[in-house]
Amino acid sequence: MTADLRGPGPRTSGTATRGETVPPVPPATTAAAVDVSALLERGRTLATPVLRAAVDRLAPPMDTVAAYHFGWIDAQGRPAHGDGGKAVRPALAVLSAEVTGARPETGVPGAVAVELVHNFSLLHDDLMDGDEQRRHRDTVWKVHGPAQAILVGDALFALANEVLLELGTVEAGRATRRLTSATRALIDGQAQDISYEHRDRVSVEECLEMEGNKTGALLACASSIGAVLGGADDATADALEKYGYHLGLAFQAVDDLLGIWGDPGATGKQTWSDLRQRKKSLPVVAALAAGGDASERLGDILAADAKSSDFDTFSEEEFAARARLIEEAGGREWTAQEARRQHTIAIEALDAVDMPGEVRARFTALADFVVVRKR
Amino acid sequence: MTADLRGPGPRTSGTATRGETVPPVPPATTAAAVDVSALLERGRTLATPVLRAAVDRLAPPMDTVAAYHFGWIDAQGRPAHGDGGKAVRPALAVLSAEVTGARPETGVPGAVAVELVHNFSLLHDDLMDGDEQRRHRDTVWKVHGPAQAILVGDALFALANEVLLELGTVEAGRATRRLTSATRALIDGQAQDISYEHRDRVSVEECLEMEGNKTGALLACASSIGAVLGGADDATADALEKYGYHLGLAFQAVDDLLGIWGDPGATGKQTWSDLRQRKKSLPVVAALAAGGDASERLGDILAADAKSSDFDTFSEEEFAARARLIEEAGGREWTAQEARRQHTIAIEALDAVDMPGEVRARFTALADFVVVRKR
Repeated sequence: MTADLRGPGPRTSGTATRGETVPPVPPATTAAAVDVSALLERGRTLATPVLRAAVDRLAPPMDTVAAYHFGWIDAQGRPAHGDGGKAVRPALAVLSAEVTGARPETGVPGAVAVELVHNFSLLHDDLMDGDEQRRHRDTVWKVHGPAQAILVGDALFALANEVLLELGTVEAGRATRRLTSATRALIDGQAQDISYEHRDRVSVEECLEMEGNKTGALLACASSIGAVLGGADDATADALEKYGYHLGLAFQAVDDLLGIWGDPGATGKQTWSDLRQRKKSLPVVAALAAGGDASERLGDILAADAKSSDFDTFSEEEFAARARLIEEAGGREWTAQEARRQHTIAIEALDAVDMPGEVRARFTALADFVVVRKR
Repeated sequence: MTADLRGPGPRTSGTATRGETVPPVPPATTAAAVDVSALLERGRTLATPVLRAAVDRLAPPMDTVAAYHFGWIDAQGRPAHGDGGKAVRPALAVLSAEVTGARPETGVPGAVAVELVHNFSLLHDDLMDGDEQRRHRDTVWKVHGPAQAILVGDALFALANEVLLELGTVEAGRATRRLTSATRALIDGQAQDISYEHRDRVSVEECLEMEGNKTGALLACASSIGAVLGGADDATADALEKYGYHLGLAFQAVDDLLGIWGDPGATGKQTWSDLRQRKKSLPVVAALAAGGDASERLGDILAADAKSSDFDTFSEEEFAARARLIEEAGGREWTAQEARRQHTIAIEALDAVDMPGEVRARFTALADFVVVRKR
């Protein structure tokens, strides 16, 4: 199952099939004893009640719209148990509090603030991108209209700052400042994503920068915010941010692999999802940058696709052919290797921080989880 | 020129014409010596370079879109000198720093943060409301598209927090918390505004609450944020917020008068602007609440208008007739009286604060300016 991981370049025998995941990293032995499910569950259990209480503060109808977005109610307002996602960010936020010797609860306002910012960006991005579905459900703008998507996104952003600043401590001020920087990066990333849509070619470096902004910055904040609230100094917070940033890039590389070759039964997305959306994700830009026969043929085909008026009617086999070319050109392997590379940088960043051994093992286990996941 | 100011109720001789302003308050003698233009100019001069430097930090194309919104460039990117507005908020922010004995410059980051939040809300509100024009120019969503309006709005909001929090002081944390509360109120107000559009009737109390959220809260923050940055205690900041909140309600009452009876040459808006937009502004809701013959006729006409398919083709005279009915029912007088009442509460709030006499005179002069302005 372990892929042959090389740099971008043409290869001739790309035969891995859809649904077959490419685990770029074998579980680290130091983290093998950690129960990742329990760690994710702890973050979710600690953060969710506080998140719900924060959202309950919103004036109607924003409270209802937000509750729909979070999957707590359905479009008719009936209680629901939606897929709340993997909850990696809350798990990291409460874990990071333990770096300072504080209890995990110290990280909870940080976990909630990060979740609020993340969901503010989802609400706005879905509208900007015209995405009609998220987590198997109609998006907010589709159900409640564009105005509510804008308004409730704004409200969640404001609420994120409120949840932190009402702590009234110096640490909360520092945490809010870091969250604000992350949010600015998130917005920069979305601006890049939008502008890249209108371009024929995007370099690997541009793609990584965009993904670092869209995914890395907030995961960086999640990985350090509990520590900041627990009184960690800037050097510690910076090192934890570095871990989170590179973990975010590893996360996104895996996401980009799943976006093309993921099993729809596991991801909940369509087959060849990112190809259908013409996303210039890492495997695509790496394949186009690789040079060689497959790379050039892919470039010609994607250029023709961009002008095609019947792209929407393409068959399974047409997308599968594009995926094979990306793989032949080396885009799949390069992305898997990139995930491993970023995972390694993330783990090494932890070396700069003095923390209890079991806390370090948990950070490592969460990093391993992120790169071997199938959804 | 001084209007006969009574409570809402039917009256028979409503004859004031469009363009004739209703100064609800004679200039206060203590403030008569203050040069309001110089005060507004001071706020503008101190805040604008810092505001421009902050906006310059945005990644392309957001910097350009924001520069267009602020009127610094035109739609083709050429330098422009747009109407930057009255600049009451920056004037208040730098003035409030002087309450604590600090220099006006101390209030500048606060002035800039408040302007950024104000403009974030304009960008999003114009899109939500479908407004195509602001300050005589096409709105951002009209020129650069809805996605840029959302994105740049988000960026200005984040930048507002950044500008304050990077000061790194305890005072900056307190100021950010107050700005966050004001922003939440602003969003609540917009939610109310949207929901009221779909209702036949809105009470005077609901209208005042909405206007307090949309206009009062941010003016409250502007009136206190410089003092907070200068180290004022919470009681001082609260009293200054009270001044600003009620000044905001006075401001909005005057705005609502100008929205119907303002001189288009001065306001830059169409004749009967708010009536054309079917706005449930204070004169309208007060007239509908007043009872009596004119009030009932107005109610019937507006109910018919709401269902009318050729409302857009109505003549000048048809809007003028509605304005006359609002006036006959007492809506114009009541709103003018409400502006005076809120102005008085604002001025009285200053009594709770110990400040240099000339600073008090300036606050009073700005309040007088707000209610006698013609645009």
